[in-house]
Amino acid sequence: MKSNLDLVDECDNFPPSLPASRKHEYDYGLLTDGPDSDTVLGYVHPKVMRVLNTPSVVISSYRVAPQSRSVAINGDTETERSANVAAVVRLWWEEGWFEVLDGWRDELYPVYHPRTRELLFSVERAASALFGVVTYGVHMTVFTSTPTGEMMIWVPRRAKTKQTYPGLLDNSVAGGISTGEGVFKSLVREAREEASLPEALVREKAVAVGAVTYMHVRDERAGGETGLLQPECEYVFDLELDGGDATPRPGDEEVEAFNLMSVPEVQAALGRGEFKPNCALVLLDFFVRHGVLTSENERDYDEIVARLHRNLRL
Amino acid sequence: MKSNLDLVDECDNFPPSLPASRKHEYDYGLLTDGPDSDTVLGYVHPKVMRVLNTPSVVISSYRVAPQSRSVAINGDTETERSANVAAVVRLWWEEGWFEVLDGWRDELYPVYHPRTRELLFSVERAASALFGVVTYGVHMTVFTSTPTGEMMIWVPRRAKTKQTYPGLLDNSVAGGISTGEGVFKSLVREAREEASLPEALVREKAVAVGAVTYMHVRDERAGGETGLLQPECEYVFDLELDGGDATPRPGDEEVEAFNLMSVPEVQAALGRGEFKPNCALVLLDFFVRHGVLTSENERDYDEIVARLHRNLRL
Repeated sequence: MKSNLDLVDECDNFPPSLPASRKHEYDYGLLTDGPDSDTVLGYVHPKVMRVLNTPSVVISSYRVAPQSRSVAINGDTETERSANVAAVVRLWWEEGWFEVLDGWRDELYPVYHPRTRELLFSVERAASALFGVVTYGVHMTVFTSTPTGEMMIWVPRRAKTKQTYPGLLDNSVAGGISTGEGVFKSLVREAREEASLPEALVREKAVAVGAVTYMHVRDERAGGETGLLQPECEYVFDLELDGGDATPRPGDEEVEAFNLMSVPEVQAALGRGEFKPNCALVLLDFFVRHGVLTSENERDYDEIVARLHRNLRL
Repeated sequence: MKSNLDLVDECDNFPPSLPASRKHEYDYGLLTDGPDSDTVLGYVHPKVMRVLNTPSVVISSYRVAPQSRSVAINGDTETERSANVAAVVRLWWEEGWFEVLDGWRDELYPVYHPRTRELLFSVERAASALFGVVTYGVHMTVFTSTPTGEMMIWVPRRAKTKQTYPGLLDNSVAGGISTGEGVFKSLVREAREEASLPEALVREKAVAVGAVTYMHVRDERAGGETGLLQPECEYVFDLELDGGDATPRPGDEEVEAFNLMSVPEVQAALGRGEFKPNCALVLLDFFVRHGVLTSENERDYDEIVARLHRNLRL
């Protein structure tokens, strides 16, 4: 039986933050926003650093620092940098350098400057973990009350055919945010596509309630290479349904079925490791915000609350 | 006009966490749980380290490490350690070594082991900042809706006679947790003493909604020496009042008056710096949880949400 802190440890499983000058101790290279910059955009897996150091036709697309400790994408504008990183990852895909690219999505993820929030470039979604850049998503917990006042949560099970985490339990609505798509717009789209929830309902009743952030080192369940670092920021929403509202039902092939589970049932499934790891964190945050977990019934409360909100300044 | 991130920076104003081996770069000594331990319980101000190195009648109560970089309280049991630290701070108080002890409270604050959560010893509340140990408190936002559905927040103004932050705006209910007092019990007591809210109402309607954590370097507004480090964990509660419920009114001399303020009014007062710094953070957390601040209307949302939940493992 996993404790709640175990669930946090399993998802937020990269060692505590270090100042940039000491990041090398963990062997990852650094993706920076320029050859002499100490602004870190991502942690680059050692295997990726080795491939970046291998002469190829795309070697002019980026610059590796002398001790091979950091890499920067060349280009003076967002367009140039996006084209350069695209050339690199497309070659890797075509030549079959990385398993993780077998899950090619043809979907661009944004890479922002950590301080100014400027869009520096976009990168193919499947390649984001190769550079260890922060990715963004939306997660919404859809819940309701029984006539006797018991809280019930709508929980989907991921299709057995999904590339990543097949068959595990998921959050009511969850998905990634592509370049150029607004946060709330992304939520509305995911709610419609995956849970068949009408746009008007989401616009009327979904409430923005925070963000859950963590640094996850990928294991075999995510597909592709293990050890890739994936810092993620999930914008979190609550949607409380009344009796008369529509209820979630599968809208595409990604979800097998939705079930209404009580809080103790969700907690038991969490303890058995049945939820996708990052969904566990979003549910723990939900339990913290709704008084299910408190400082008096959860021994590790202080640490859990802090760890659900890791500072992703790399 | 302060931005929301400015408000966070003002309260969580200690540089980002460093691993224990590099904590010395900030000049603070370390309070550890034993002479050879690297379990850090607090950051000890340099002036305090100098006084600890000065021979006195209480020098057998603690042990300073050879390079004067860390200090541990002697004693095999909680009782012995509490007696030893009490002897030290009482002597300092009697001999007038530290201004901050002019605010002596005769109230004990707990110091826990950061991992096991064992109570290691207790220390006089006014002395806790000398050792830079984590202190714990409760903060509750009491709010209601107008007939047209506008959210209104009950905001007290601190008495001009308060030792710390006189005359500033405060959270509806807020206070420190002493050794042995439960979190919810402390909330019930503070709600009664400071806001005249009946126990039954608090027990029925207050909801635990998380914790706000930060590391604050004290300035002159806190009274006493500046530069003392105060890591704090505030357990946060919401209390939504209906029309028929009691409303907050001053219960002792600590609060001058309660006023019902709209969200825009609270935001304007925050921007003018009228709130006590840590209360600003609790209000920002309230705004994040209630969809007032979102990733789409607050440029610094990601950083604010993470920084409201700083990891206090020192």
